[in-house]
Amino acid sequence: MERVSIIGLGLIGGSLGLALKRARGKSLEVVGYSRSPRTMATAYQRGAVDRAAHDLASAVHACQIVILATPVMAMKEALEGVAAGLAPGSVVTDTASTKGQVMAWAEACLPPTVSFIGGHPMAGKETSGIGAADADLFHGCTYCLTPGRGATPEATGLVLKLVEAIGARPLLIDAAKHDELVAGISHLPLLLSYALVEATALSPAWPEMAPLAATGYRDLSRLASGHPDMARDICLSNRDNILRWLDRFLEELNGYRGLVASGQGDALERAFRKVRQAREQWLKMKQAHSKP
Amino acid sequence: MERVSIIGLGLIGGSLGLALKRARGKSLEVVGYSRSPRTMATAYQRGAVDRAAHDLASAVHACQIVILATPVMAMKEALEGVAAGLAPGSVVTDTASTKGQVMAWAEACLPPTVSFIGGHPMAGKETSGIGAADADLFHGCTYCLTPGRGATPEATGLVLKLVEAIGARPLLIDAAKHDELVAGISHLPLLLSYALVEATALSPAWPEMAPLAATGYRDLSRLASGHPDMARDICLSNRDNILRWLDRFLEELNGYRGLVASGQGDALERAFRKVRQAREQWLKMKQAHSKP
Repeated sequence: MERVSIIGLGLIGGSLGLALKRARGKSLEVVGYSRSPRTMATAYQRGAVDRAAHDLASAVHACQIVILATPVMAMKEALEGVAAGLAPGSVVTDTASTKGQVMAWAEACLPPTVSFIGGHPMAGKETSGIGAADADLFHGCTYCLTPGRGATPEATGLVLKLVEAIGARPLLIDAAKHDELVAGISHLPLLLSYALVEATALSPAWPEMAPLAATGYRDLSRLASGHPDMARDICLSNRDNILRWLDRFLEELNGYRGLVASGQGDALERAFRKVRQAREQWLKMKQAHSKP
Repeated sequence: MERVSIIGLGLIGGSLGLALKRARGKSLEVVGYSRSPRTMATAYQRGAVDRAAHDLASAVHACQIVILATPVMAMKEALEGVAAGLAPGSVVTDTASTKGQVMAWAEACLPPTVSFIGGHPMAGKETSGIGAADADLFHGCTYCLTPGRGATPEATGLVLKLVEAIGARPLLIDAAKHDELVAGISHLPLLLSYALVEATALSPAWPEMAPLAATGYRDLSRLASGHPDMARDICLSNRDNILRWLDRFLEELNGYRGLVASGQGDALERAFRKVRQAREQWLKMKQAHSKP
């Protein structure tokens, strides 16, 4: 790996640049492209890219790996934009939150001489944009990889190395399975954050409530500070899975509603205890996995 | 203020002891009581109390301020238990998450020579118990105070000083208003956390999902790691307000569900943008208030 291209220099693209430069130094050239010249300038100043490209074709020219780090619904255009300029034998990967849609576009848009390996780093932050980019963003995170139909083992190996270089743990997973699981673990929480803020911060009672809102509210509403375009694209590209998990959640919340309404303290306590235990087990598992 | 008693030495009671001792040192004696001898021993070892009491009567003997830091539904018993031993002119306060119920119990149980000032520090932590107690827990947090009907101005002044000594910002508020507001800002998020973990971590898909769950899931599920007794008591003592906010939330979430189901990207993006802006404003306000 000598030259990598990053298309899209927001939080994820910028952080990838910073993490790759830190890991590989001068042995790797990172070429960056963003539609915003200001974003490109900031990415260069922060050291996330060695060189800014003026268009997609020159951005991917003679690159071994091309990383598309745009929101999901911009991926088709990005794939079409880079296709003609890709070096034969090169590898394209992406960072989108949903994989089914992107995999289909990649198959339709990319030449057969190029391998596509879908990617999704399970990492995020309260703030978005190149200003929030962070070389440590991927440290210890699960990084999903979904090799395309025609991807060569060498291409998969190259992306695995890239993922390991930035300190993440690669997880090979089927695209459909990925989308099903992240709808529960990531897209459902996202919608809960939005609906919570909508129900509270946009209610007439908010001026009185705001001073009382503390760390619990801050944590539960955190995902509502993410990028609106990204959230919209997630909803558009993973609809059926999201609806399934939303309905499952609504069932549980209505169950709790019933217990609260009828004042069933014992049943509530049992449920709360069981749930706490499940969360503690997950935290322990996370902790065990994060040990070197 | 020379002697303060803390009844209940969990996260909140223990943190109050640590914060008071740090602020006042030897000029203040903190007497502690817990039903668990082990908790009392830990509170003493950690320096949260100067002295452990063997029963409620001796715990409150000759104290200027008595702080009840038990879960809501244990407050009645605690109030009954301390009533006879209270020094005339002393002040009783509590730390319960809901205030209406506790105010009524205090009025019924305490002698007229004693002032009751309800209290609720808007602070919390992922972990509970004396082991998690932290002298910094209240730093910069809003601390609600609801003076009882017969409370003297001197009593209110004394509790205000105590709140300021631990670095919190006192907010005088009516008990009914408090319960209405915290149902939206605190109890609704609590139930969302539980329902999220119930829908995901207790689903058959969990073993596959768990490795993908990252910081977003961790934050949204954080409140589910709180103490189940406390959560149960919140639901039992603030039922009607919780149901109202739950229904408001369900309305919003169902609104989002409709937009996702019909693929209305523009409407989703507009909503997400508006919500993000509301949250950013709240964060700015918080930041401005936390400046010295």
